Amino acid sequence: MPNPTAAILIIGDEILSGRTREANAHYLAGELTRAGIDLKEIRVVPDGMEAIASAVNALRAAHTHVFTSGGIGPTHDDITADAVAAAFGVPLSIRDDARALLAAHYRERGMEFNAPRQRMARVPGDAILIDNPISAAPGFSIGNVHVMAGVPSIFQAMVASLLPRLTGGSPMLSQSLRIDQGEGVIAERLGALAAAFPDLSMGSYPFIQNGAYGTNIVIRGTDPARIDEAMTQLAALFPGEPA
Amino acid sequence: MPNPTAAILIIGDEILSGRTREANAHYLAGELTRAGIDLKEIRVVPDGMEAIASAVNALRAAHTHVFTSGGIGPTHDDITADAVAAAFGVPLSIRDDARALLAAHYRERGMEFNAPRQRMARVPGDAILIDNPISAAPGFSIGNVHVMAGVPSIFQAMVASLLPRLTGGSPMLSQSLRIDQGEGVIAERLGALAAAFPDLSMGSYPFIQNGAYGTNIVIRGTDPARIDEAMTQLAALFPGEPA
Repeated sequence: MPNPTAAILIIGDEILSGRTREANAHYLAGELTRAGIDLKEIRVVPDGMEAIASAVNALRAAHTHVFTSGGIGPTHDDITADAVAAAFGVPLSIRDDARALLAAHYRERGMEFNAPRQRMARVPGDAILIDNPISAAPGFSIGNVHVMAGVPSIFQAMVASLLPRLTGGSPMLSQSLRIDQGEGVIAERLGALAAAFPDLSMGSYPFIQNGAYGTNIVIRGTDPARIDEAMTQLAALFPGEPA
Repeated sequence: MPNPTAAILIIGDEILSGRTREANAHYLAGELTRAGIDLKEIRVVPDGMEAIASAVNALRAAHTHVFTSGGIGPTHDDITADAVAAAFGVPLSIRDDARALLAAHYRERGMEFNAPRQRMARVPGDAILIDNPISAAPGFSIGNVHVMAGVPSIFQAMVASLLPRLTGGSPMLSQSLRIDQGEGVIAERLGALAAAFPDLSMGSYPFIQNGAYGTNIVIRGTDPARIDEAMTQLAALFPGEPA
């Protein structure tokens, strides 16, 4: 059975303006690889209803899972829940279970549970809450779309809450070899090797270090014995240091 | 006249597997903001013909410019030129001008201009070459799609070659204020301020530092006087340190 597939949707003008360097997609990419869920696409879109809703609808139709990051806080520019509700055509309103979580959190801390904070208890339809052990305001899963916060520590905590209830596949395994030659030197032999292992993916990643060209070769697949076999042949072609 | 819009398309399995942290989108996002070109979307797709071609076609229809990164080297997994040619329905073959650039580069260095390296002289249709002062292998612009290398130093050099020939708009300007209070405390007053300045965008970016909640407010727009006016009112609402 092929692995489930996934897309990540990052929501936020601050990424597109170049102000903030996005980190959640990279983090989740590694977690999904370990879980055997094949990440097929990452998109970054602005804080706009139409941009978010149309990306949600395109991605949820194409993949087993969609993970979103950002736009679920209490301020005027947090419209992800609204856009996801619109994408699914379901109502968005304050839900008692989410409200109770937040009310308890603020009560314990002697903080006012004001209107903006109550806004974070809005959950579309019959979505399942995603636990937020850091600041209480929950994420939620509706259908195959999992809506999480943008603050990295909260995003990571939500991923840890969510992933155990998703069904993974065969973890994608990889080994790599660093070769101190440019791609142009190794391309022919590497291409022949890749053709001999059609069940594996062989990626070639050039770099420049201290003015010299080099290449990292990454062999990926789900069968560790096949990866070992390909790595042995690769190392024989290009004697070097295993990375 | 509204600013031109743009999308960035990052091509590479290594980003989606979580192995490599992508850097080119963040770099180009900053350059586009300075040039007055509004970045509206970033996508990351795998090294696959169909994935690349369909993303190119979707993005070039929706935006003034599309910038791609990755997949134009000499190895078997470098298929961006093939996919872009397919997306445009034009042939891809070795072009004399690109071939001459590469031949001279390798001749000067006493390196063999072998078949994989000649593959990097393949340019679709009547595309315009993008200069690569580092390793000679050119990028190219076909229609509104600008195809560049993935190695960050080469990507940045190509961006420097390319941007001066694109027409920009009004540079998006921004000012920011760091507030040592969580979003839930400031949301109501901030929302009212944002509503009073519909010509500006006010982004609210929460953070957690040493266990305490804080918020960065970023005000963006093209009119510096309006931004100053909004910043003055913001600072009066939340006396703090300008970031």
